[in-house]
Amino acid sequence: MSTIEMIRAAEMRLRGHARRTPLLSSPFLDEIAGKRVLVKAECLQHTGSFKFRGGWSAVSALSPDTRARGVIAFSSGNHAQGVALAAKRHDTPAVIIMPSDAPRMKIDNTRALGAEVVLYDRASEDRDAIGARIASERGLTLIKPFDEPQVIAGQGTTGLEIAEQATEQGIGDADVLICCGGGGLTSGIALALADRAPGLRPRPVEPHGFDDVSRSLASGRIERNDRMSGSRCDAILTPEPGQITFPILRRLCGPGLVVTDDEALRAVALAFSRLKIVVEPGGAVALAAALFHADEIEGDAMIAVATGGNVDAGVFREALERFGD
Amino acid sequence: MSTIEMIRAAEMRLRGHARRTPLLSSPFLDEIAGKRVLVKAECLQHTGSFKFRGGWSAVSALSPDTRARGVIAFSSGNHAQGVALAAKRHDTPAVIIMPSDAPRMKIDNTRALGAEVVLYDRASEDRDAIGARIASERGLTLIKPFDEPQVIAGQGTTGLEIAEQATEQGIGDADVLICCGGGGLTSGIALALADRAPGLRPRPVEPHGFDDVSRSLASGRIERNDRMSGSRCDAILTPEPGQITFPILRRLCGPGLVVTDDEALRAVALAFSRLKIVVEPGGAVALAAALFHADEIEGDAMIAVATGGNVDAGVFREALERFGD
Repeated sequence: MSTIEMIRAAEMRLRGHARRTPLLSSPFLDEIAGKRVLVKAECLQHTGSFKFRGGWSAVSALSPDTRARGVIAFSSGNHAQGVALAAKRHDTPAVIIMPSDAPRMKIDNTRALGAEVVLYDRASEDRDAIGARIASERGLTLIKPFDEPQVIAGQGTTGLEIAEQATEQGIGDADVLICCGGGGLTSGIALALADRAPGLRPRPVEPHGFDDVSRSLASGRIERNDRMSGSRCDAILTPEPGQITFPILRRLCGPGLVVTDDEALRAVALAFSRLKIVVEPGGAVALAAALFHADEIEGDAMIAVATGGNVDAGVFREALERFGD
Repeated sequence: MSTIEMIRAAEMRLRGHARRTPLLSSPFLDEIAGKRVLVKAECLQHTGSFKFRGGWSAVSALSPDTRARGVIAFSSGNHAQGVALAAKRHDTPAVIIMPSDAPRMKIDNTRALGAEVVLYDRASEDRDAIGARIASERGLTLIKPFDEPQVIAGQGTTGLEIAEQATEQGIGDADVLICCGGGGLTSGIALALADRAPGLRPRPVEPHGFDDVSRSLASGRIERNDRMSGSRCDAILTPEPGQITFPILRRLCGPGLVVTDDEALRAVALAFSRLKIVVEPGGAVALAAALFHADEIEGDAMIAVATGGNVDAGVFREALERFGD
């Protein structure tokens, strides 16, 4: 069970290793939304996304013996890089299982961060079987991307910072909008806010067509997405909320919000021009909800988490071409 | 005369108003440079550049009566926006004199930040005469972009933060590379470092063909640029170092560094992919020097100031197209 005590302990382990990312704002964004908008720029975290927090938390929580044998993760994206760098800095071997058709740059980055990358063919090979074999041969510990208490605890440190930074800026009452895949970040932030800043209300945000969390919150039971591709917001596409994360989301979160891919790309362009940060489409859905769905939000202020910035140059150029200036 | 006491006083006035911008890094950039590279992300400052610090410092230093009458500035770019927002937050009228051929977005932004924009025709009208007439009619105070003690003091607060943040990261010995136009930021940082962190050595960086400061430091007297256009680094093109800034630069700075426009654009693309920040070409020359001229730099670590991020979407797309991925 993930609890506020685990988040506090993770905070101590992350101190001096994870960045305290800034809470940014712009009068131009406030004007678009018609409310005050603050953006937690987690794209500025090490490896370009909040996933470094969870990776560090999980690796640092292992016993020295277990850690020395190494860790393993399945990921084609941000979790891979977060775990790889956290392991490297702990001098821990890391194996990352990636699909052979993952973008070359993500594979190269993960290798450059010191991990051993094992590629598998999505069509013909069983990822879990490959991972289980390597893990058992070498005694590696699996670090799951979201349904894992120490990962949730690490992501929750983002919420402790939001509570502190909101107070510094005089905000005690606001909706906190969080880009949501499997719910690791959202549940971690929700736990932290419930403890430290009960006037800040967590709300998950998802891309249109991949709104499993929103539908699950509405129905009260875990709902699945019909498909797993076809959105620009690839970083946050997951089949369904986690077994550990969903009960936390259900207990602590307000209703989910859903944005279109074009709204996400428009938010990418506005984060470029108004905040000077690079956000990937999946990391921009919360900002998109703040800017374009403010009528679905209660308070006078909104805090949107910009969760990651690992976007290909081509996609970013497209966002600027269509929605820049 | 600008002094460390003025910088400390400016720091007190800026507290809670200017952002303490983060000091970022990436193992990928360290590898390119062959040395440790830290980036002071001043593009994340309010209005997208360090100029907000100088604007706030100057406006807040005025007596209440003088301030109530208003301020005036000449600028087509970052200084305009910095002064406009600082004045607005002080409830002070601001007039900004801009060339009528300035980019429409910069004119619109300056107006949106509450300033009265007065346009003049570069070919047929005398900017100084227009400014002097309006200033005298309304009793406005002129805020010069760099050769002005309170502006230098405001920019110098960047140096206080660099000294503190370098210590936090265990760096006591490094070259501090600063994008340099008229020398307001460079002289302010140099004064702050001389007082707080004498192991951090300030070095101005300029674009090729506009290296007036580098040549002035070499010859020991103020040298002018031959021309004032023809570089992508428009934000930092000035005819010559200032009468107040140059003696400070000469006393405290190491030799200047010069980079090409292509090196600056390459640094823009790397700041995008590795740091997730938006930097304009003129604000990227210091990072370009760190990455591509490390052999001209003494220490094992370099701190590069990314001074601004107010870049047109078209120019940014070009940088990504040529140098992204």
